[in-house]
Amino acid sequence: MSCLFCRIIKGEIPAFKVYETSKVYAFLDINPLAEGHTLLIPKVHGAKMHEIPDDYLAEILPAARKIALALGATQDDAFQYNVLQNNGTLAHQVVQHVHFHVIPKPNEAEGLGIGWPGKPTDFDALKKTHEALLKKLEGKL
Amino acid sequence: MSCLFCRIIKGEIPAFKVYETSKVYAFLDINPLAEGHTLLIPKVHGAKMHEIPDDYLAEILPAARKIALALGATQDDAFQYNVLQNNGTLAHQVVQHVHFHVIPKPNEAEGLGIGWPGKPTDFDALKKTHEALLKKLEGKL
Repeated sequence: MSCLFCRIIKGEIPAFKVYETSKVYAFLDINPLAEGHTLLIPKVHGAKMHEIPDDYLAEILPAARKIALALGATQDDAFQYNVLQNNGTLAHQVVQHVHFHVIPKPNEAEGLGIGWPGKPTDFDALKKTHEALLKKLEGKL
Repeated sequence: MSCLFCRIIKGEIPAFKVYETSKVYAFLDINPLAEGHTLLIPKVHGAKMHEIPDDYLAEILPAARKIALALGATQDDAFQYNVLQNNGTLAHQVVQHVHFHVIPKPNEAEGLGIGWPGKPTDFDALKKTHEALLKKLEGKL
């Protein structure tokens, strides 16, 4: 087994584990974007999110919620954070085992940097995309 | 009810809905970062992820998985994408109802732009953060 994250789950490589259930495992990123940057992974191997079974995916965000609360999340904006999961090299994925980042955003310089090249609203284009997606979803659900 | 996304769920404002269950609702972003950019929201109001009950959170990623497959996700890197959820103004949140972005990454110019100001590994700092987090998680779990 050469997957770094599978080896961390098995305890073959040490990690700063913060949380674990039968289906998910969470540990500190050792090159954090900000203090408390945590990685949450399913305890089944898969490179991309869509390869992970639903029962594993279902436990990820409840675990992320617990971690956010432990990091200091409140009702106001005193603690801000991003949840991010990347699929593919161009999309900034490095390790080929699905991982969700919980990244505190304490200030402009630390935490996730976000570029947002939003397109203007184009209803004709949206309508075409919508129709194509609905056809595929009807076939798959 | 003045929340834009609550009004979309209720059908008071039209949207390009692509998927819905009793707990989640998905629709196209009308200012997409790339074609197919979809928003996934819980059908309960809350501004931040940690305010959403676990049974709603549990259905988000299985729905995101279906949407990724409909958008064209495969085993290889032919279709790349990011899943992102922002909490707080500094963290790039605009609408104050929790929303998960499923954002195709077709090329460098389109899709999510990511800045990654990673810090060098500092084991002493990590150990302190780890101990503090474990204390809080033990108290909350």
